[in-house]
Amino acid sequence: MNKTIANPLPVSAVRVTDPFFAPRINVVRGQMLPYQWDALNDRLPGAEPSHSVENFRIAAGLSRGAHHGMVFQDSDLYKWLEAVAYVLAIEPDNALRAHADEAIGIMERAQRQDGYLNTYYQLNGIDRRWTNLQDNHELYCAGHLFEAAVAYYLATQTDKLLRIAVRYADLIDSVFGVDEGKMRGYPGHEVIEMGLVQLYRVTGEARYLKLAKYFIDQRGQSPLYFEEEAKKDNNRKFYWDKTYMRYQYYQAGKPVREQTVAEGHAVRAMYLYAGMADVAMETGDDELLSVCEALFTDIADRQMYITGAIGATEVGESFTYGYDLPNDTVYAETCAQIGLCFFAQRMLRHSADRRYADVLERALYNGVLSGMSLDGTRFFYVNPLEVTPIACEQDDLRRHVKPERQQWYTCSCCPPNLARIVCSAASYAYAAKGDTLYVHLYLGGELKARLDGLDVEMKIESGYPWKGEVRVRAMTAGRYALALRVPGWCRGWSVSINGERADAELDKGYIYLRCDWAAGDEVLLSLEMPVTLVRANPAIREDIGKLAVTRGPLVYCLEEADNGADLHQIALSHDTQFEVRHQPDLLNGVYTLHCSGVRLQSPGFENNALYAPADQALSTTPVPLTWIPYYAWANRGIGEMTVWVKEL
Amino acid sequence: MNKTIANPLPVSAVRVTDPFFAPRINVVRGQMLPYQWDALNDRLPGAEPSHSVENFRIAAGLSRGAHHGMVFQDSDLYKWLEAVAYVLAIEPDNALRAHADEAIGIMERAQRQDGYLNTYYQLNGIDRRWTNLQDNHELYCAGHLFEAAVAYYLATQTDKLLRIAVRYADLIDSVFGVDEGKMRGYPGHEVIEMGLVQLYRVTGEARYLKLAKYFIDQRGQSPLYFEEEAKKDNNRKFYWDKTYMRYQYYQAGKPVREQTVAEGHAVRAMYLYAGMADVAMETGDDELLSVCEALFTDIADRQMYITGAIGATEVGESFTYGYDLPNDTVYAETCAQIGLCFFAQRMLRHSADRRYADVLERALYNGVLSGMSLDGTRFFYVNPLEVTPIACEQDDLRRHVKPERQQWYTCSCCPPNLARIVCSAASYAYAAKGDTLYVHLYLGGELKARLDGLDVEMKIESGYPWKGEVRVRAMTAGRYALALRVPGWCRGWSVSINGERADAELDKGYIYLRCDWAAGDEVLLSLEMPVTLVRANPAIREDIGKLAVTRGPLVYCLEEADNGADLHQIALSHDTQFEVRHQPDLLNGVYTLHCSGVRLQSPGFENNALYAPADQALSTTPVPLTWIPYYAWANRGIGEMTVWVKEL
Repeated sequence: MNKTIANPLPVSAVRVTDPFFAPRINVVRGQMLPYQWDALNDRLPGAEPSHSVENFRIAAGLSRGAHHGMVFQDSDLYKWLEAVAYVLAIEPDNALRAHADEAIGIMERAQRQDGYLNTYYQLNGIDRRWTNLQDNHELYCAGHLFEAAVAYYLATQTDKLLRIAVRYADLIDSVFGVDEGKMRGYPGHEVIEMGLVQLYRVTGEARYLKLAKYFIDQRGQSPLYFEEEAKKDNNRKFYWDKTYMRYQYYQAGKPVREQTVAEGHAVRAMYLYAGMADVAMETGDDELLSVCEALFTDIADRQMYITGAIGATEVGESFTYGYDLPNDTVYAETCAQIGLCFFAQRMLRHSADRRYADVLERALYNGVLSGMSLDGTRFFYVNPLEVTPIACEQDDLRRHVKPERQQWYTCSCCPPNLARIVCSAASYAYAAKGDTLYVHLYLGGELKARLDGLDVEMKIESGYPWKGEVRVRAMTAGRYALALRVPGWCRGWSVSINGERADAELDKGYIYLRCDWAAGDEVLLSLEMPVTLVRANPAIREDIGKLAVTRGPLVYCLEEADNGADLHQIALSHDTQFEVRHQPDLLNGVYTLHCSGVRLQSPGFENNALYAPADQALSTTPVPLTWIPYYAWANRGIGEMTVWVKEL
Repeated sequence: MNKTIANPLPVSAVRVTDPFFAPRINVVRGQMLPYQWDALNDRLPGAEPSHSVENFRIAAGLSRGAHHGMVFQDSDLYKWLEAVAYVLAIEPDNALRAHADEAIGIMERAQRQDGYLNTYYQLNGIDRRWTNLQDNHELYCAGHLFEAAVAYYLATQTDKLLRIAVRYADLIDSVFGVDEGKMRGYPGHEVIEMGLVQLYRVTGEARYLKLAKYFIDQRGQSPLYFEEEAKKDNNRKFYWDKTYMRYQYYQAGKPVREQTVAEGHAVRAMYLYAGMADVAMETGDDELLSVCEALFTDIADRQMYITGAIGATEVGESFTYGYDLPNDTVYAETCAQIGLCFFAQRMLRHSADRRYADVLERALYNGVLSGMSLDGTRFFYVNPLEVTPIACEQDDLRRHVKPERQQWYTCSCCPPNLARIVCSAASYAYAAKGDTLYVHLYLGGELKARLDGLDVEMKIESGYPWKGEVRVRAMTAGRYALALRVPGWCRGWSVSINGERADAELDKGYIYLRCDWAAGDEVLLSLEMPVTLVRANPAIREDIGKLAVTRGPLVYCLEEADNGADLHQIALSHDTQFEVRHQPDLLNGVYTLHCSGVRLQSPGFENNALYAPADQALSTTPVPLTWIPYYAWANRGIGEMTVWVKEL
């Protein structure tokens, strides 16, 4: 355990009692993971068959047939396994455990003698392996295997999957690197960097950290590996060459230390940056860390939607350029937001600065959770901020935007990714370093942490994200510190210990309470959580003259179901007053917001003219408006939705 | 000559003296057509080689080599020839005439014995002809040949090109039709319908009209010809199948009489609808005419930009759906606007209703003329209403939008199309029917028309589009009628004859003056032409809460050159007062508009935050604004441009 950085609490150290997250974890355990197991086994009626388990069965000699699905189909099963590991870390689940062990048994049989494990190449010709790192996701699948293996080992203390991972990692380490005779390749889709660091942390094997560092530092070096690889492979066609991004689609057009602006495929970028942060922290590489900081700032200050979503364009599922944040043609892949959480969590390990946690919270409670239906069986790939259903159908530039969540996808990266982040939310909420327990997110639970050698127990109760009161009860006596984040959105707060107001100052957005605690001491943090209307930076063309509605960590939206169609005609004054209503029976229990707005009505269009002189002032009709949390949209049928509305 | 419909005056009947159009015709004659001749002969340094003439030379046995360029490369030369014909109809030009005759001579040698003439198939394998009507543009090229041949015959009274056209038309007539043994095909890209009707009008050969009617009525009949054709051709891949449009990309998914909403590729649609109108009028087919009326209404009332541009999406260069008119991702191909002029001109022949002429004028003076640089050597394919140069470069969804006109294109349909419409503008301005001369557009000139057997001469002087005074002088004594359009944008007008105010009522937007004229009688039409702020129908999402600035027939825009960057921050009140300035030295002479607007400035972003609470009211800073005519944008370097601005 690296003592110079804050370590997230393991999932097993927290019993989540949070009234918002606990039911979601239950949905993942009770519905989503069994449902996804059926999907991975091609048992979902009407859904695209995954073939993911079957590919492994064929590779293991347990079944016959050809590989089907994406070239990275293996990773769906790995991500599912990782999510199951988090569930098992929380509490036993015999059915999921049995499914997972069955899958791992198949993987063990499928793994080749030399450690290689990738069903696509095993079933399509092993001699072609390592010939298309650019697009064929071998190292990506390996990375997800490593992450799953570490999680499963930590959850179950069984090492069958870990041994599979280690064998494969050793093979990869023998193949790639700068040493004579090794290939100087690196993955087209990053994630192996994070996976190798995880493997290093659990096994203590320094080669894995070194290999992760190699993959990062070799990336984008001249001559470009992907260019050389394509030449060798019959001058293979390079799709992204046609686009502005070219090799930056893969973040591989120049050395990563020269990359200070987030570019290319957003999920790949997040996985790379998170891996860079991991390697930088583990190796004490301040230069690399400052690159991570610059990239984080570029995203948070110039390329992030108010929902924490990233990836402005469908072309390459990519970033575009600063302040280009269209709401309707947006990509905002669920996995990209999840990747942003990975990146933010790692930056928080390095420095308890709330700007990282603010982004983490914004993404998690909005642009990540919007990716799943309330019942956990339908998923969004794209998370738009403005939807007109007819456009999704009839305008091919917006066909990637769906007005309703889908059962499953041919490329089903997002559903298992959601499962793993929801079940491991505790690791994003809490971290320990020295004598300090960091509370980044107010996820209610009972936790155990080792603080400067002392085993400490604590209870946290919160009505988050609906209420701003958080109670932290120290269950263990002793001297240690609590670091409580005051979110960036909060502009009035107070903290008391055992009912007595404590004087506390913010250090990078955190309150530090370092005390001799008695068992039962209670800290009450009160965060004011009024409805807040928000404007976007005036450099954002799409949002100029518009307002968004937020309350606490949540972004709200208007849906057609509550407010009728033609939401683009709605306008609001910046000093609008809101009523907050708790609606326990709506959308699994939400707080809705209510206000008066207007509909813009241009006079002069009585005869359906397309254009008419603006002789008269715009007229407006008052309308009552109902706002729901953005994450809960599209759970009541197909209709329009918008986050931003015009400012009156 | 069909007496039941109004006949446009031939180009040769009008000597254009118009201060706005005459210089443009001179640019076309003096710069554009010689420049395009160089382009078609691959003599433009730095531009894509066209190979258009060379393809004909090879087919004629005058040169050796392979076909290069688009499958419809022949049509570029045909359109150029047609434009040259209009120039020659206006006045002799020995150099252009020599080039044209040279090209026609090559075509004559290239034409096969059986009449076939298409360099793509002649050079790539004649046995494959007629096997891919869907995408390979054979009948499209033929259609442009017919149009060029008719224009050249009318201009020069030489029939070499007309005979080439007739031979080819006879071949096509022998191949296609419903008779036993004939192919039931029709073109993937329409235009032959218009071309055949032209050929019928000049030759009197009824088979050509019948064939045009066949192509229209067979289109979209079940079983779908293109589907059958693709099956026969090794199940050829059908690109548009992936899109919402499918066969409607070609307007070929259902019979044309069932098509009342404009769909698919906008240029194809316009050419089809214009051809339908031609056939409907020539055959007295009221049902088909009512389909044309419905289609025209759908475009004019639901799918047209304020600049007269059409085609909302780059995907398929197509229409999307009603009121979907994004300003920045728009397609708005120059050829589509030209096609809309064709369609509107034909509807005007059927009925002198100003709504047709309003659309014609709107398109011609705005979205068509914007397609060419002021010097006639640079061209836009896409005519956006809002441009952010960085988006054109870095957002692949907007890469089709260019911030500056290009020299030439691989697919160079637009440049010669511009040449032909500019030079034939007189045919759009004037028409004759019975004893009436229709003046649809106020194009100054001296004209001759035969009205009920009387040869009439007339002089028209106008300062259009800058000034609203139009003088029409009757040079021939006699009883006949003048029909003068009062444009839809005009809300105050008066008319006098020889200085005496005439009482006149509008009939579908036209003033009819039926008198016994004396030679020298002068009609003065005064059209009030104030600056008018315009709103879009509130169903248009992209324009809600915005204003556009117009004056007379012209739409104005803001350019960065005059108003700085970040034009999205500009806002205007609907009762803004404007100053109109004549600037003879700016942009070849324009009237600019000047007013006070504001820049929106959101407080709270001092530290570059992406989002901030809207505690304070939006602040605004007054700024002086300079507006230029939309057609003249992008003649002063690369910068932002917008037509619509926020309404305060």
